[in-house]
Amino acid sequence: MNDRISQIMSFYESDNPGSRANLVRILNHGRLGGTGRLVILPVDQGFEHGPARSFAPNPAGYNPLYHFQLALEAGCNAYAAPLGALEAGAARYAGEIPLILKANNHDVLDSDQDPLSAVTGSVRQALRLGCAAVGFTIYPGSAQSRTMYEQLRSLAEEAKEAGLAVVVWSYPRGSELSKEGETGIDVVAYAAQIAAQLGAHVIKVKLPSAHLEQAEAKKVYEKHRVPVGSLAERVRHVVQSAFDGRRIVIFSGGARADDERVFEEVRAVRDGGGFGSIIGRNSFQRGRADALKFLDTVIRIYAGEIQ
Amino acid sequence: MNDRISQIMSFYESDNPGSRANLVRILNHGRLGGTGRLVILPVDQGFEHGPARSFAPNPAGYNPLYHFQLALEAGCNAYAAPLGALEAGAARYAGEIPLILKANNHDVLDSDQDPLSAVTGSVRQALRLGCAAVGFTIYPGSAQSRTMYEQLRSLAEEAKEAGLAVVVWSYPRGSELSKEGETGIDVVAYAAQIAAQLGAHVIKVKLPSAHLEQAEAKKVYEKHRVPVGSLAERVRHVVQSAFDGRRIVIFSGGARADDERVFEEVRAVRDGGGFGSIIGRNSFQRGRADALKFLDTVIRIYAGEIQ
Amino acid sequence: MNDRISQIMSFYESDNPGSRANLVRILNHGRLGGTGRLVILPVDQGFEHGPARSFAPNPAGYNPLYHFQLALEAGCNAYAAPLGALEAGAARYAGEIPLILKANNHDVLDSDQDPLSAVTGSVRQALRLGCAAVGFTIYPGSAQSRTMYEQLRSLAEEAKEAGLAVVVWSYPRGSELSKEGETGIDVVAYAAQIAAQLGAHVIKVKLPSAHLEQAEAKKVYEKHRVPVGSLAERVRHVVQSAFDGRRIVIFSGGARADDERVFEEVRAVRDGGGFGSIIGRNSFQRGRADALKFLDTVIRIYAGEIQ
Amino acid sequence: MNDRISQIMSFYESDNPGSRANLVRILNHGRLGGTGRLVILPVDQGFEHGPARSFAPNPAGYNPLYHFQLALEAGCNAYAAPLGALEAGAARYAGEIPLILKANNHDVLDSDQDPLSAVTGSVRQALRLGCAAVGFTIYPGSAQSRTMYEQLRSLAEEAKEAGLAVVVWSYPRGSELSKEGETGIDVVAYAAQIAAQLGAHVIKVKLPSAHLEQAEAKKVYEKHRVPVGSLAERVRHVVQSAFDGRRIVIFSGGARADDERVFEEVRAVRDGGGFGSIIGRNSFQRGRADALKFLDTVIRIYAGEIQ
Amino acid sequence: MNDRISQIMSFYESDNPGSRANLVRILNHGRLGGTGRLVILPVDQGFEHGPARSFAPNPAGYNPLYHFQLALEAGCNAYAAPLGALEAGAARYAGEIPLILKANNHDVLDSDQDPLSAVTGSVRQALRLGCAAVGFTIYPGSAQSRTMYEQLRSLAEEAKEAGLAVVVWSYPRGSELSKEGETGIDVVAYAAQIAAQLGAHVIKVKLPSAHLEQAEAKKVYEKHRVPVGSLAERVRHVVQSAFDGRRIVIFSGGARADDERVFEEVRAVRDGGGFGSIIGRNSFQRGRADALKFLDTVIRIYAGEIQ
Repeated sequence: MNDRISQIMSFYESDNPGSRANLVRILNHGRLGGTGRLVILPVDQGFEHGPARSFAPNPAGYNPLYHFQLALEAGCNAYAAPLGALEAGAARYAGEIPLILKANNHDVLDSDQDPLSAVTGSVRQALRLGCAAVGFTIYPGSAQSRTMYEQLRSLAEEAKEAGLAVVVWSYPRGSELSKEGETGIDVVAYAAQIAAQLGAHVIKVKLPSAHLEQAEAKKVYEKHRVPVGSLAERVRHVVQSAFDGRRIVIFSGGARADDERVFEEVRAVRDGGGFGSIIGRNSFQRGRADALKFLDTVIRIYAGEIQ
Repeated sequence: MNDRISQIMSFYESDNPGSRANLVRILNHGRLGGTGRLVILPVDQGFEHGPARSFAPNPAGYNPLYHFQLALEAGCNAYAAPLGALEAGAARYAGEIPLILKANNHDVLDSDQDPLSAVTGSVRQALRLGCAAVGFTIYPGSAQSRTMYEQLRSLAEEAKEAGLAVVVWSYPRGSELSKEGETGIDVVAYAAQIAAQLGAHVIKVKLPSAHLEQAEAKKVYEKHRVPVGSLAERVRHVVQSAFDGRRIVIFSGGARADDERVFEEVRAVRDGGGFGSIIGRNSFQRGRADALKFLDTVIRIYAGEIQ
Repeated sequence: MNDRISQIMSFYESDNPGSRANLVRILNHGRLGGTGRLVILPVDQGFEHGPARSFAPNPAGYNPLYHFQLALEAGCNAYAAPLGALEAGAARYAGEIPLILKANNHDVLDSDQDPLSAVTGSVRQALRLGCAAVGFTIYPGSAQSRTMYEQLRSLAEEAKEAGLAVVVWSYPRGSELSKEGETGIDVVAYAAQIAAQLGAHVIKVKLPSAHLEQAEAKKVYEKHRVPVGSLAERVRHVVQSAFDGRRIVIFSGGARADDERVFEEVRAVRDGGGFGSIIGRNSFQRGRADALKFLDTVIRIYAGEIQ
Repeated sequence: MNDRISQIMSFYESDNPGSRANLVRILNHGRLGGTGRLVILPVDQGFEHGPARSFAPNPAGYNPLYHFQLALEAGCNAYAAPLGALEAGAARYAGEIPLILKANNHDVLDSDQDPLSAVTGSVRQALRLGCAAVGFTIYPGSAQSRTMYEQLRSLAEEAKEAGLAVVVWSYPRGSELSKEGETGIDVVAYAAQIAAQLGAHVIKVKLPSAHLEQAEAKKVYEKHRVPVGSLAERVRHVVQSAFDGRRIVIFSGGARADDERVFEEVRAVRDGGGFGSIIGRNSFQRGRADALKFLDTVIRIYAGEIQ
Repeated sequence: MNDRISQIMSFYESDNPGSRANLVRILNHGRLGGTGRLVILPVDQGFEHGPARSFAPNPAGYNPLYHFQLALEAGCNAYAAPLGALEAGAARYAGEIPLILKANNHDVLDSDQDPLSAVTGSVRQALRLGCAAVGFTIYPGSAQSRTMYEQLRSLAEEAKEAGLAVVVWSYPRGSELSKEGETGIDVVAYAAQIAAQLGAHVIKVKLPSAHLEQAEAKKVYEKHRVPVGSLAERVRHVVQSAFDGRRIVIFSGGARADDERVFEEVRAVRDGGGFGSIIGRNSFQRGRADALKFLDTVIRIYAGEIQ
C-alpha cells in the first residue's frame, strides 16, 4: 500500500479488515490502481431507462458479458450492475475485476415525483457473487427518502459486518426540489453529507451547478462567501461536505455528451480534489474501440499523464 | 447433456448445481426434451379469472388431476399451477413431470388499475411438493411494482439457495400504460429486461405488437431503426433485451384463439429465436383428444418436424 | 377407515400424516362419523355481532361451556370458536370433540365496505389448546383481500407443518360487489375455487342464489348452459368449482330462520353433493332441548335416516 | 387458596401454571386478598393526559415512588403503570406488590378520532421488572382497532407463554361512535366480549350507562327485555357478556368525582357481581392521608365491612 | 462514586450494571465529572440542516475529527453524533470520551408538518463503535409520534439489554401545535414526561417559555398556580415533570445566540435544578479558541466557580 492509499485508508480506520480490504482492492485495481483516483463502469441503465434506450446505440451492450469485458480492458477500478447482470458474468469473470452489486433499482414505466427504488439485491447475493461492494441509491428530497435511508442503514450494517464496502448513489429528487435544484451546489453538497452520515464508504453524486436552491442555505453561502463559482470549486466544496475529504467522492457523467465536455469535467473533478468518475452511458453507448479510447483519455487525465 | 442444452446452461454458470439441475430437468423433459425449446402448460386461470370462465368450456378441467395428466400425455416440459391445484396432484404424479409452483395470484373480484398479486405460495411449499421451480408474476408499470419486485427478490433468493429454478411472468400493466401499450414492443422488451435483471432464470412475456408506447423509447427505436416490423423480429428484439439471448424467454398465447393463428405465432417465436410457449386456455378449454392434437402440432413446429 | 372416508382422504394425499389424522378425526367424530358428511357448530357471533345480539335469545349461550356441551351432545363433528371461547373450555373438554380455532375475527363497531378481519389466533395457540384445525375467514372481493390471502398462506403453511387441518370461511364481500352478488352463484363458486387454490382442506361458503354478478362470467354460464336453476344444482356447481369435489365443501345457514326452510336447504346440500353444514345461530339461539331436536333432524337428513 | 379463589381460578384452567400463579398473586394480595374482589391502582395519566393535569392537584404524585407506596399502604391488589414509571421503583419495591406493566400508551398532543396507542412496553420488560401481568388498551370501534387486536394477540400469546397474566383495558372509541355511545351498555358489553375473546384474563371497562348505541343491538335488548335499568343490572350484564362471569371484570372510575358518587358506583359493581375497581385519579389527585381514607372506604365496601 | 453521583444513580437502580456503568462514565467524565452536572457536545446539524449552514461559519467543523477534539479539550461529558461522523473518529479517539450514537436523523430537503426521523443507527453499531449511549429523537405532537415511540421502545430495550445508556431528544412538533406551543411550558413538561415514561435515562428538551398551549392544561396551571414565571421556575417544573427530578434532564441551546444570553440560560438551568446543557451550534460555529473559552464559562457556571 503506497502512501496515498494508506492516507485514504486512514479515513476508514473504524472499519473492520474485510471492508478495508475490499476498498483497497478497488483502489488498487486497474490502470489507476494506487493513484487514489477511480474510474468505475456502471451499467444499470437497462433497468433504469429500458434496454433499447440503453443499448440500441451499441447493440453489443445487450450482452452483459460485454460490460465485464469493457471494464476489464479499459482498466477501470470496478464494475457496477444489478443482480441479474452480475449473475450473467460473475462466474466467468470471477476474480478479474472488483464488482459492485447495485442493490436497488428504479424503472420509468410509471412516473413518480417522489421516487423510491425497489430493493433488488442483498448482501447475501453480493457475497455469493464475489462482489467487493454493494451499491445503493438514495433520493434525498423525496417524500420517501426516510424509507431509503433506513433500507440503506440496514444494508450497510449487514455489508460492513460481512466485510464489504458500501457505495452510495446520492441523487436529490423530489416534488419540493426544482429540476435545477437537483444539481444545485447546496443540494448536492447536502446529499454528499447525508450519504457520509449514513455510513457510505464511497459516495457518488452528480456534478453540481452554481445554482443555490434553498433560501436558508443561500443566505449562508452568500454571507460566508463560500467559493462555488467554478466547477472545480464546487467539486472541492462537495468533497469538503463529505467529511472534509475523508470520504471517497466520485462524480457521475450523466447522459451521452460531447467528449471534450466530459474531459473538461474530469479535469474539474481532478483539480477540485474529487476522487474520480463513474461513467456509464458515455462509455458503453459507442463502439468498443471508441469506448476504450475515450476511457483511456479519462484515465490519463486522472493519472496526470495528460492535461 | 447435448450441445444446445450445454450452451443454454452456460448462461447460468453463476447458479448453484441445484438450480441448474432443475433447469436441465425442465429442458430435458417431454417431447421437446433436449431441443432447447419448451412448451409449458399453466393452469392458474381458475384463480385469475374464476372457475366457470376457465373450465365450463371443458368441464373435465375442474379436476386438477386432469391437467397433470394432460401435460404429461402431451409431452410438455413442465406444468405450472397455484398451491392448491398442485397439492391436489403432487403426490399422485410425484416425479412424473417437472412442476412449477405459481407463487402469487390475482383475482378479478375487485378491480385495480395498478394491480398487485397476493403471495400465495412459498419456497417451503415448492420443496414440500417436489417442484422444480417457483413462478412469480410482476406487473412492471403498476404503481405497486416495487412491492412485487421486492417480493420476487426475496422469493428468488430463497429459491436459488434451495436449488430451485425461478420463472417470472412479466406482464406490464398500470394506470399510466395504455391498453395497447401493455403489449407494445418497447414495453414488452423492457419487461423482459427487468425480469432478467431481477434474476429470473426463465422469463415469460406476452407476444409484442409493433406499437411503441413511451416517447423517449420511440425516439431511440426510430433513430437506430431497430427492426420490429414482423412478429419474428419483435420476438428477436425481446430475446435480445433479455441479456442478448442468455436467458430463456418464452411467450404466452393469451385467450382462446383460432388454431392457425396460434401456430403462426409459434412459428414466429421459433423463427425469432424464442425458446418456446406457455399455453393455457388454448390447451385446456377444449376436449382432451383435441387438446392433445393441438399441442402435438405446436410441439412439432418447435421440433422442426413441420413448418 | 371405511371406503367413503378413504375416498375423501385420497383427495389429500399430498398432506402429511398429521393433517390427515386431524381430518379423519373430524370426519369420524359424532353421529355422522364415517358417513363423509359433517355438521359443525361455530360460535363466533359474540365477537362478530356482539354478545346480546348473539346470546340474549338464549342466555345460557353467554357461557362458553354451553357450546362445548351442545356440540358434544348433539353429536356434531367439531366445534369452532375464537381464542378466548376455546380457552374457556378446552381444558375441561379436552379430547372430547375436535376443536377448530377461528383464527381471525371481525366486529361491527365500525363499518367497512371492504372488510379485513383481525388475526386473533395462531397455530401455537391451536396446538396449545389441542385443536384439530385452524379456521380463517377470507373476503374475496374486498380491496383488502390480498392481505387476507397472504395471512392465510402463512397460517396454513404453519398449520400444515404442525399437522393441523385448515378450514377456510370464504365469504365474498367488497365495495364492488352488490349485496345480491355476495351470494350469486358465479361469485360463490369463485370464492370456493380461491379457497381451494389457497390450500384449504375444508371450505365453508354460503348457500348460493341463482343471481349472476359478473358480466364476463354471466356470458360463460349462459353460453355453456351451466345448470344453476335449483339449489341442489348450485351446490353441485360450487362443489365442482372446488376441485371437482376433491375438497370438503360445507355450507352455512346464516341468520335464524324457519326450521323447515333450513331442512330444505340441508336436503339441497345433501342432494347436490355438498359435504355438510355449519350451523351456528340456528342452533344456539334457542333452548337446549329444542336445539338438540333441531340438530337431530339435520343430522338424520344427512345420515339418510329421514328424507 | 380458599373456595372463592379456587372457583375463580377454575375459569382459567386452560392456562399454564405460571399465568395462574400470577393471577392468584393478584387475587390474594392486599386487604381484599382472598375475597375475589380487587382494587387496583393505575397511574398512566402522566403519559395519557400530561404531568400537570395529572399531578398538580397533589404534587407528591410527580414522584413515581409515591404511587408504589400509596398502592402498598392502601392495601391494593396491584399497581399498574407504564415502563418508565415502573423502572423508577421496581427495584426498590421488588416483591412487595404485584405490578402490571401498561404496555401501550396514548398522549393528547395530537388529536385522533380513531385512536391508536403506541406500544411502549413488552413481555421482556415485564419479566425483567418482575411484573405479574401486562396491561394493554384496545379501542373497539376505532378504525384502527384491528391493529390493536393484533398487537394484543401477539403480546398476550407471548405473555401467557412466559407465565404472566394479561389485563385488557377495553375502551370503545371511534369516529362512528357517539360520545354517549362510548359508554352505552350495548357497546360496553360488546367491548367486554371482545376482550374476553381476545384472551384477556382480566378485563377493565368503564361503567356503562343505559344508552343503547347500535340500532341492531337496541332491537335485541328491547325484544328480549334485557334488564339494564339500574347500574347494578348493567354491571351484571357486562359481567355476563364476559363469558357469563367466567372472566374477571373490573370497572374504572374515570375523572375525579364526588366521593359519595364513587362509593355508590362501587356498591353497584359489588351488587352487580363485578370483581372490583381500578381507581386512579380519584386516589392520587388528593393528599396521601385523604387518599388512604378514601381507598379504605372503597375496600371496606367490597369486603362487606360496610354497606 | 461520590455522594451526588450515588444519589443520581439511585434513580436508576432497576437498570442493569452495564447501563449504570455507562451513565457513571458520562457523569464522571470531563471537567464537570462528579458534580452531577453535564455539558454534552452534539453535532448532527450537518445532517439536520445541511453542511454549509452548519459548518461554513467555522469550516474546520467540516472535519468530524474536529468535534471529537473540541469535546475532549473543552472537557465535555460526552460527544453525540450520527453514525458516519462517529465512524470517522471512533477508532482514533477510542476510549477518550464517552460517545453517544444519535440513532435517528431528519433532513430539511423536504418539508413535513408532522415530521418523522429516519432510523440511521442501531445498538449493534453503537456497540461496535464503543459508544456509551444511544440517542434518539421523538417528536411528541407529530401525527407520526406513535411510530417514533415504538422505534424508541425497541431501540431502548435492546440498548438496555446491551448495557448502554439511552438519551432521548424530546422535541414537540406537529400540525396541531402552534410554533409558540412547541416550547410552551405545558408542552415541554409533557414532552419530558413522555420521554421518562418511555424509559429514557437522560432527557434532552428545549428551554421552555411561559406560553401555555393546551386549554385543558392551562386550566390546571392556573387553578393550582404552578409557578412558571421565571426561566428557573420553568426548568424546575420540567425537571419535576420527569419523575420529580429522578431522571437526568438537560436543556438545549438552539441556534447561535448572544453569549451573555446563553450564560443567563445556563444559570437558570443550574438554579432550576436542571442537570446541564447540550450545546452544539453555539460551540462549533465559532473558532476553536473562542469555542473553548465559551465552553469554559458554561462549565464554570455549572461547577459553581463563577456566578
